[in-house]
Amino acid sequence: MKEQITPRFDKLGGLLPAIVQDAATGQVLMLAFMNEEAWEMTLKTREAHYYSRSRQTLWHKGGTSGHVQRVQEILLDCDADTVLLKVEQVGGAACHEGYASCFFRRLTADGWQVLGTPVFDPQEVYKRG
Amino acid sequence: MKEQITPRFDKLGGLLPAIVQDAATGQVLMLAFMNEEAWEMTLKTREAHYYSRSRQTLWHKGGTSGHVQRVQEILLDCDADTVLLKVEQVGGAACHEGYASCFFRRLTADGWQVLGTPVFDPQEVYKRG
Repeated sequence: MKEQITPRFDKLGGLLPAIVQDAATGQVLMLAFMNEEAWEMTLKTREAHYYSRSRQTLWHKGGTSGHVQRVQEILLDCDADTVLLKVEQVGGAACHEGYASCFFRRLTADGWQVLGTPVFDPQEVYKRG
Repeated sequence: MKEQITPRFDKLGGLLPAIVQDAATGQVLMLAFMNEEAWEMTLKTREAHYYSRSRQTLWHKGGTSGHVQRVQEILLDCDADTVLLKVEQVGGAACHEGYASCFFRRLTADGWQVLGTPVFDPQEVYKRG
């Protein structure tokens, strides 16, 4: 018995939060937002698409850097207002700053400590033509 | 060298998305939102507090069920607009429907498939006095 449910885009003004997790390691890589177009493109291509709030446009993750996210599994939460993508992160880094995960700062008693080192140099990956 | 950064509550109208992950297993449990009061209470008590969008009030997770989330680690993302909480989930279930994780539905070719079984009976845990 399968449920026929549609993710709710109305809770955050047309945007569905998507948590992105590395399918192999379980590391949480990033949070992004999908509009309905991004959701449909993700289902169709099995590569993660989001809505860029800063650029106000469809965002094929990795379209510039080549570091696409191949979607292995899609999970929906109880309220149908958040999705969890389990992905294979091509290039080994999800963050535009070159870190494997966007969550590279840990709270300590005296501030935020940067964890680990970048996998790639953003200036090299995003160099202008 | 530690960074002094404040999470950004302005990107989503005063709310900071918080991804909640089981510290021991790596399972993603839920997504919730914090306003500044919830953030401060979480830091002070080391138990997760959120802002309930449906009830429009501070929400001490587990305050009703006893299933609090003991915060082990707090991570901040590159843009400082999302946090990741690694928690010990008391009672073994984060979802109000009794499942360990709110993400208990997986997308298949013919709809959403429910994964696993509830850890507790919501009607028992949230019974009215």
